[in-house]
Amino acid sequence: MQSVEVDAENIIRAITPALDSSRHKGQAGNIAVIGGCREYTGAPYFAAISALKIGADLSHVFCTKDAAHVIKSYSPELIVHPVLEESYNVREEDKKMISSKVLAEVDKWIERFNCLVIGPGLGRDPFLLDCVSEIMRHARQSNIPIVIDGDGLFLVTNNLDLVSGYALAVLTPNVNEYKRLVQKVLSSEVNDEDATQQVLSLAKQIGGVTILKKGKSDIINDGDTVKSVSIYGSPRRCGGQGDILSGSVAVFLSWARQHIEAAGPDSNLSCKNPTVLGSIAGSAMMRKAASLAFSNKKRSTVTGDIIECLGKSLEDICPASS
Amino acid sequence: MQSVEVDAENIIRAITPALDSSRHKGQAGNIAVIGGCREYTGAPYFAAISALKIGADLSHVFCTKDAAHVIKSYSPELIVHPVLEESYNVREEDKKMISSKVLAEVDKWIERFNCLVIGPGLGRDPFLLDCVSEIMRHARQSNIPIVIDGDGLFLVTNNLDLVSGYALAVLTPNVNEYKRLVQKVLSSEVNDEDATQQVLSLAKQIGGVTILKKGKSDIINDGDTVKSVSIYGSPRRCGGQGDILSGSVAVFLSWARQHIEAAGPDSNLSCKNPTVLGSIAGSAMMRKAASLAFSNKKRSTVTGDIIECLGKSLEDICPASS
Repeated sequence: MQSVEVDAENIIRAITPALDSSRHKGQAGNIAVIGGCREYTGAPYFAAISALKIGADLSHVFCTKDAAHVIKSYSPELIVHPVLEESYNVREEDKKMISSKVLAEVDKWIERFNCLVIGPGLGRDPFLLDCVSEIMRHARQSNIPIVIDGDGLFLVTNNLDLVSGYALAVLTPNVNEYKRLVQKVLSSEVNDEDATQQVLSLAKQIGGVTILKKGKSDIINDGDTVKSVSIYGSPRRCGGQGDILSGSVAVFLSWARQHIEAAGPDSNLSCKNPTVLGSIAGSAMMRKAASLAFSNKKRSTVTGDIIECLGKSLEDICPASS
Repeated sequence: MQSVEVDAENIIRAITPALDSSRHKGQAGNIAVIGGCREYTGAPYFAAISALKIGADLSHVFCTKDAAHVIKSYSPELIVHPVLEESYNVREEDKKMISSKVLAEVDKWIERFNCLVIGPGLGRDPFLLDCVSEIMRHARQSNIPIVIDGDGLFLVTNNLDLVSGYALAVLTPNVNEYKRLVQKVLSSEVNDEDATQQVLSLAKQIGGVTILKKGKSDIINDGDTVKSVSIYGSPRRCGGQGDILSGSVAVFLSWARQHIEAAGPDSNLSCKNPTVLGSIAGSAMMRKAASLAFSNKKRSTVTGDIIECLGKSLEDICPASS
């Protein structure tokens, strides 16, 4: 079985909303990244700022107090909420109370978000991950799409019920994260001979989530058809590119959902699954920006350089003034 | 009833002070933004830096300790005072003492300011808002103009006496903030059919404040005539643009007041209300900068990009060397 290379640029053009001066703040997307702890601050920043640079109106980060000041200082464009807590800061007897408080802080906002990105720089603190599991359950109750990457995939791989059967979830594993998922869900090793069949089985087994498997070609599937995105790309593998991807998928997923809701059966796209469309668009956009950045900066390309190329990449495919 | 599109560029040229090497620091404007708390740091930064970029000599921020380090880190150009306090940091029995302390800190400076901007990133903490109410009362006693946006509008909508009858106050509501104001003040819903009449009633009812209603066209009125600014603009709705506007209005309002005081009846402007003139100039300047930024950055335009275009926008309309 082979995956089918899709016309990703056509999908990007179809789902990207027209800009119109009668629209108001928030209509082009309000995204939240759940991540950022004592150890990691770059990843949630990269994911959140990428969402803005692609065209979301508002981008939030929910992180620990330790991470918040640093992430805020990277850019005044983000709204950063210092609400998560790690075990080292919490006494055993206070855990229940603090967990409720964290959840209440996120709940104040959650209905306004078009998509959550869970995982960039989240870390693996057990108490923090327990809180994030609850946030995922609330998001799911409110039908808010979730893109899961990094330590979010560590959490989900060990707690498959968090996403099982949730069609609005996207998992974006890299080689190692994919390996752990396959071992856990299919109780087997990664099979490169029939990669397409295996990723299909994986998505089916988890129950209709969309999997964006990152690699030389990105493979996208929702347990039904399998698509691939191979255009563009860069040989540079600096850390942080996965964070750009997760933020990009979040925005395009939101736009695809609006497009499908508005166009209904009139959409000229054969695929009607917003998580698949968002994954394809996010993958192509990330690869185009990485390719553009690499052509300028070569070996010295870093993630920030790629983020600076998101705007031009989207404009090349889908001009804003048209 | 229709609003009248004004020649905003002519107003900008009339009120912008000539630059002259005999002038000294502070004469082109000393602005203070009251805002910035644990949650928000971008908004007060955007308002304060915009004031400088338009041409104010000094720009201050009064915020909480949590916010101060971050705002300072955005730019060494601002003077940031870590003086506000939120409830979570204050014991009940200390509230009166701390409130007096906060007020004393602001009072040391208040007479030097040409205009206050109240609200960007202020948050909604009740204790903090009580302190800010007192700051507004002191500003009013000293006849210092006040531009009110964001959470400042939340405060004022629930405490109309803070601005009622104060001709040096400007309210800059967006769609949602305007809706709440109309509900509270006029006990009715927003009427898009006769928007001009409604905004006029609103300004009259609050008692001679100036309202700058943001939208596809910006509508400005002081309970007397109603003006609109429709030139330029951008379809991008990224968060933070309202903060640029409030900082810009503060500077132009200060300049308009100086112009009216100096020129008296000799001013060739038909409107002599500095809050209306400042609102018109701020609106046009923000829209021109947003338009310029959008022509460069398209969908990836963020608020910082617009701020970078303020200087060129003003120079295009009113060259400094002439």
